[in-house]
Amino acid sequence: MKIVIAPDSFKGSLSAWQASVAIEQGIKKVLPKADTHLIPVGDGGEGTMNSLVLATSGKKVEFSVTGPLHAPVKAEYGILGDQKTCVIEMASASGLCLIPSEQRDPMITTTYGTGELIKKALDDGCRRIILAVGGSATNDGGIGMLQALGMKLLDAEGNPVGLGARELQRIAEINDCDFDPRVSDTKFVIASDVQNPLIGPHGSSYVFGPQKGATPETVEILDTYLTGWANLVESKTGVRLHDKPGAGAAGGIGGAFQAFFPAVTRRGIDIVIEYTKLGERLAGADLVFTGEGQIDFQTASGKTPMGVAQEAQKYGIPVFVLAGSIGKGIDTLYQYGINSIHSIVSAPISLQEAMEKGAELLTSSAEQVLRAYLASVSPVETKK
Amino acid sequence: MKIVIAPDSFKGSLSAWQASVAIEQGIKKVLPKADTHLIPVGDGGEGTMNSLVLATSGKKVEFSVTGPLHAPVKAEYGILGDQKTCVIEMASASGLCLIPSEQRDPMITTTYGTGELIKKALDDGCRRIILAVGGSATNDGGIGMLQALGMKLLDAEGNPVGLGARELQRIAEINDCDFDPRVSDTKFVIASDVQNPLIGPHGSSYVFGPQKGATPETVEILDTYLTGWANLVESKTGVRLHDKPGAGAAGGIGGAFQAFFPAVTRRGIDIVIEYTKLGERLAGADLVFTGEGQIDFQTASGKTPMGVAQEAQKYGIPVFVLAGSIGKGIDTLYQYGINSIHSIVSAPISLQEAMEKGAELLTSSAEQVLRAYLASVSPVETKK
Repeated sequence: MKIVIAPDSFKGSLSAWQASVAIEQGIKKVLPKADTHLIPVGDGGEGTMNSLVLATSGKKVEFSVTGPLHAPVKAEYGILGDQKTCVIEMASASGLCLIPSEQRDPMITTTYGTGELIKKALDDGCRRIILAVGGSATNDGGIGMLQALGMKLLDAEGNPVGLGARELQRIAEINDCDFDPRVSDTKFVIASDVQNPLIGPHGSSYVFGPQKGATPETVEILDTYLTGWANLVESKTGVRLHDKPGAGAAGGIGGAFQAFFPAVTRRGIDIVIEYTKLGERLAGADLVFTGEGQIDFQTASGKTPMGVAQEAQKYGIPVFVLAGSIGKGIDTLYQYGINSIHSIVSAPISLQEAMEKGAELLTSSAEQVLRAYLASVSPVETKK
Repeated sequence: MKIVIAPDSFKGSLSAWQASVAIEQGIKKVLPKADTHLIPVGDGGEGTMNSLVLATSGKKVEFSVTGPLHAPVKAEYGILGDQKTCVIEMASASGLCLIPSEQRDPMITTTYGTGELIKKALDDGCRRIILAVGGSATNDGGIGMLQALGMKLLDAEGNPVGLGARELQRIAEINDCDFDPRVSDTKFVIASDVQNPLIGPHGSSYVFGPQKGATPETVEILDTYLTGWANLVESKTGVRLHDKPGAGAAGGIGGAFQAFFPAVTRRGIDIVIEYTKLGERLAGADLVFTGEGQIDFQTASGKTPMGVAQEAQKYGIPVFVLAGSIGKGIDTLYQYGINSIHSIVSAPISLQEAMEKGAELLTSSAEQVLRAYLASVSPVETKK
């Protein structure tokens, strides 16, 4: 029996790889000879780089860049097995996870480090760059990233402005004469599920600002600053980011790519599915196990279990979803190829205990779900 | 598809009947036309009477008896559909559940009320009495029950002793001249899984006394008292209860039945399976759902899911177990016909929340397990 195991991470408990190993152990308890294929799958958020590096036998490269609060941080990106494609997680250089919650301030945070990662990837010879924009701490419209790549953002006196969203108001001119020329020879793929425009009530400041530390007052100021920036960009490039879907991704870095880069945006999960060759590897499979920490109605909007199920559905392969926590609205998920959804929690326990025992719980639940499935296939065999 | 739903109660949350209804709802969400058969199954403990009354279209009768602490309590028993068989739960008249925990005292508690229930059943014309002995608050060797049925237990001066285990030491003579003569014309079936002898380290005082409120000192005294009682019983009847298996059931009432009654002891679950005609009703079934609040290695010793599974195994029908909490040692259960074991808990939550949401959780988990099973039977159908 060929079984594909393609979970996302269980945040706070297990990486996607650890989760797939735990599921495999449960399967092997029932079917020791099962032909298991472990394909950890990020959905374009954190974990994407690891998924792709692992799937393509690539490597990770670590070095120091400017962090979100302007101090240096250790960041890393992945070079895929083809040696030409680089995978960058914006969170690694400009992520919320790099800042203690009390220091979060989207007026200050910069995407400069993300730009440095891109520059380094270009130096390394990469001409295809996948950028996963989840988990950013920034709201700077992507100006830090542009600055790192040589874009001159000048004030009214012709002097370069500094870093962070608070500098947006000072920009009077965008001068691209020193903008890294390799950018135009490179294909940028933005992994993002965000459809928000740059400004307004559905824009990045209002929707994502608060989780990055913005107060209601700061949100308003940030939106005003980004409006000024959008006006400048429009007069410079003709691209109107104000209401462009996706321009509001990751504090507006989505818009910077739309205006200044040869970039396409794709659902993160679709990129991961492509690079992990999930489709090919599903061929001939009898079953698929996937999973994630939390499953609910939001799963339908491009989360890993959903992407995996849609792919498996093409082949008519049953898909079981294992989750730490099952929320509301899961009835909508069956249409995408998910057969059943099971919590790994085996008793009334605390979140902390569930996280500590994540691997053990995942192993047990995978075992039991497989047993339930096999009850019809071969009742005798499962009782061995 | 014929599906038999035969759960025990989920203690503190759902009666066996409520549990079976909740499971049915989950099944109907997937297979609206499923041919479901609801058979709530007690295992000889509390809930047994309801199971049997329901299964045989019998009735319940309520009246006042002497409670465990000698004050009157409302108790009930069931008359089965044949009008001749009475089902008595000892807990109803002499149960731990009738006493606040701070008032528990096995020196005082009496089985007198249980004797009154038997007497009333005999008055009602019942000549077959099933006595479920789970949940008792007593350690009186069954003397209260004997007293209620006319057995004279006299002190050294020839006066009747009072109620409760503390009176055991005063008994000098057992006089059965007024013992209810109908007892010898009646078949008594004791529903008990307990194999403990009356006295000694594995006897009722040492093993069950503490949960009934006995301190370590009281346990020793109770064991001494029961030893004296066993000596008297032996000289009166020739039956040696000291080390007789089952004599220690329910504070020694098991021994009283063995010495003075035409009684047989059977596993509670086997009695329930017989009266609910579970075997017949399994014929032609495709699936069985059972369940209980807690599943662990103890389930193997005659608990409901185990008894149901053993019966289903005879027909080769897959059995799914749903549990509030899955404990240790479940690997031993598969050999008895259980296919898989699933917790109903859908996320890290408290015991209280799990109990409050018991029905909803049970419905969801039944649905998901059925979906997993059906993934192999008919992938398309389950996605509807």
